[in-house]
Amino acid sequence: MALIVQKYGGTSVGSPERIESVAEKVIDWRERGHQLVVVVSAMSGETDRLIGLAKAITPRPTPRELDVLLATGEQVTIALLCIALEKRGCPARSYTGGQVRILTDNAFNKARIQDIQADAMRADLDAGRVVVVAGFQGVDGDGNITTLGRGGSDTTGVALAAALKADECQIYTDVDGVYTTDPRIVSDARRLNRITFEEMLEMASLGSKVLQIRSVEFAGKHNVPLRVLSTFQEGPGTLITFEEALAVESMEKEQISGIAFNRDEAKLTVSGVPDRPGIAFSILGPVSQANIEVDMIVQNIGHDGTTDFTFTVHRNDYERTLEILKDHAARLGAREVSGDNRIAKLSLVGIGMRSHAGVASKMFEALGKEGINIRMISTSEIKISVVVDEKYLELGVRTLHEVFELEKSV
Amino acid sequence: MALIVQKYGGTSVGSPERIESVAEKVIDWRERGHQLVVVVSAMSGETDRLIGLAKAITPRPTPRELDVLLATGEQVTIALLCIALEKRGCPARSYTGGQVRILTDNAFNKARIQDIQADAMRADLDAGRVVVVAGFQGVDGDGNITTLGRGGSDTTGVALAAALKADECQIYTDVDGVYTTDPRIVSDARRLNRITFEEMLEMASLGSKVLQIRSVEFAGKHNVPLRVLSTFQEGPGTLITFEEALAVESMEKEQISGIAFNRDEAKLTVSGVPDRPGIAFSILGPVSQANIEVDMIVQNIGHDGTTDFTFTVHRNDYERTLEILKDHAARLGAREVSGDNRIAKLSLVGIGMRSHAGVASKMFEALGKEGINIRMISTSEIKISVVVDEKYLELGVRTLHEVFELEKSV
Repeated sequence: MALIVQKYGGTSVGSPERIESVAEKVIDWRERGHQLVVVVSAMSGETDRLIGLAKAITPRPTPRELDVLLATGEQVTIALLCIALEKRGCPARSYTGGQVRILTDNAFNKARIQDIQADAMRADLDAGRVVVVAGFQGVDGDGNITTLGRGGSDTTGVALAAALKADECQIYTDVDGVYTTDPRIVSDARRLNRITFEEMLEMASLGSKVLQIRSVEFAGKHNVPLRVLSTFQEGPGTLITFEEALAVESMEKEQISGIAFNRDEAKLTVSGVPDRPGIAFSILGPVSQANIEVDMIVQNIGHDGTTDFTFTVHRNDYERTLEILKDHAARLGAREVSGDNRIAKLSLVGIGMRSHAGVASKMFEALGKEGINIRMISTSEIKISVVVDEKYLELGVRTLHEVFELEKSV
Repeated sequence: MALIVQKYGGTSVGSPERIESVAEKVIDWRERGHQLVVVVSAMSGETDRLIGLAKAITPRPTPRELDVLLATGEQVTIALLCIALEKRGCPARSYTGGQVRILTDNAFNKARIQDIQADAMRADLDAGRVVVVAGFQGVDGDGNITTLGRGGSDTTGVALAAALKADECQIYTDVDGVYTTDPRIVSDARRLNRITFEEMLEMASLGSKVLQIRSVEFAGKHNVPLRVLSTFQEGPGTLITFEEALAVESMEKEQISGIAFNRDEAKLTVSGVPDRPGIAFSILGPVSQANIEVDMIVQNIGHDGTTDFTFTVHRNDYERTLEILKDHAARLGAREVSGDNRIAKLSLVGIGMRSHAGVASKMFEALGKEGINIRMISTSEIKISVVVDEKYLELGVRTLHEVFELEKSV
């Protein structure tokens, strides 16, 4: 008998019929002898409907009251799921975030979980009940309702799994696992049976949006095995776990887990700036003061006492960043400010590449053979990212998927 | 400076625009120097929408979970009203029933309020905030969400007014007060400035559905002055208060406050039953066992050792009651069981009639002059009810309104 925390997202509980399907899935797990804690999101569309009501009054609703409003979305779902479970003779009990209680700080709209009181839930589980918890919400020390911000329901699931020391946290979604890359680009992209937390973080932050990065971090930090599965089709999904666990089970870990990509970025270059200490800060300071997030940063080696400095930002911030740089160009002594918002980033991700030389050169060679010019390179222990012209994105992903034979299971 | 509890129903808060109007009304009262606690219902249609979701799963949802579901309706409204208040620079804070906390028993779907913790609300009021509370809901001793059943938001308003010792509880609705009778029947029906709790109870239970009877009882019991006003038009409404308060202000209290009526009843007669002790119970026992509520009961004087027994039930229960009586007719030794579901009940209501003889005879004379046959009569200290053929309802109401000069203010 295992204790399993399951989380179902908005699409999975999008209608009374779908909630009934979830109830049947939960009962199926329970009949296999497991204890179940189920975390649910608001029904798809409901959060937007609620935000619409608030925005009809003002574009800037009071943060505290916005949370009171939004928390109703998940409360509706917990009630309906319990109704569907009990209709089938399965004893169940719903909990709002405040009832659990999931204690958070008081940062309305983006609260952080501080503590979870698991006693009542444990008593219910011991009494044979399924526990159904509203995701995305908590309560602060003064009893105010809070919400956790984007992806908050995943975080609730992981945090409950950690608090209850659950055997596994299963995140049900509309895809059946984590793939070597986007199957819309590479038709024989393969579902990974396992991936490490570190790889998953790189995959997620690089554009393979299966899980919210925050919940993956949380799970890694609290040693909660995380599994991504599909609500709508059967299958084992992808288990996100620890390197040690992987090492034991597969001696020959595959070099590369997958290829992530991102076409939401734009690159900017400040050319011919004096090559002196502090120049990076002089350039990026005004950008970060404008609350623009910078992703990749590359500084070329200097010549003639000057250097070229290139970085990427979200494509939406491109124009604004360009303006800021131009405003500061004179002060920086820069020869030129230029940019390109028709770029894409490709990343090879894999724990295995640490111990295998030659991954980078194999990557560059393959891209070069296809005539794809590499505009920027940045590396970490478990990934290599390159920026190419946007038009080469699909060709690049397919080429790398083939060269590294990701369609084959090790 | 007075402490005022205001309650706005579903129609009054039926859209973001209407919620903004309510905010302006609240701010208007606050600017006159009053402290405000505002109780709101779910937006009109929302409770039905939520019930529809549950019923799509099962016709008999778990009572506990139905309350979790329905409580979201009012939670949405408190958030939106606070957002509208704060947008206008008026500090406000929302409270769910559980946050107040409004402690109830654990009778889900029809819980009764047991206690209210007013400390947090008082602190907010003292800090100059408007307090906005979700009507219709509370929390039981174990922290489960409960709802109060039909008309529960009115009850919340009155209970908060009692707990806070408010100077007045104002119930905003879509009518501008309590009338001498239905203006759709008598065009010069007059709004009453004041009415006693006792009269109001008779008016409400007899069909002038302005306030839920339960909240009127509650207000009377806890000495809370209650005022009914319109959300949509200006005016003083009707104050429901104590006889003593009335006596001081208007020495010459009008005899009759109003004329209530009800066409939802049907009458049944068991004729020629043996006139012996216990016969009333023999007849009504099986009816009440079938959970059918009986309203008026009249037993005529016996002759030849037999008597006729007549009573009224809700028209929906007519067929079933007739069946039950026929099943028992032989056992009772009745000569005949008969009934009529084309009847109407008219009632004169007024504290004043206690000290004025001749009200009843004046009433009977007026109806007789118009050729309206009286089929049943029943009286209490402050009302006289008669049953007439349904077709005479409007004529009867207009006749009595005119004879007792209810269009004239005393």
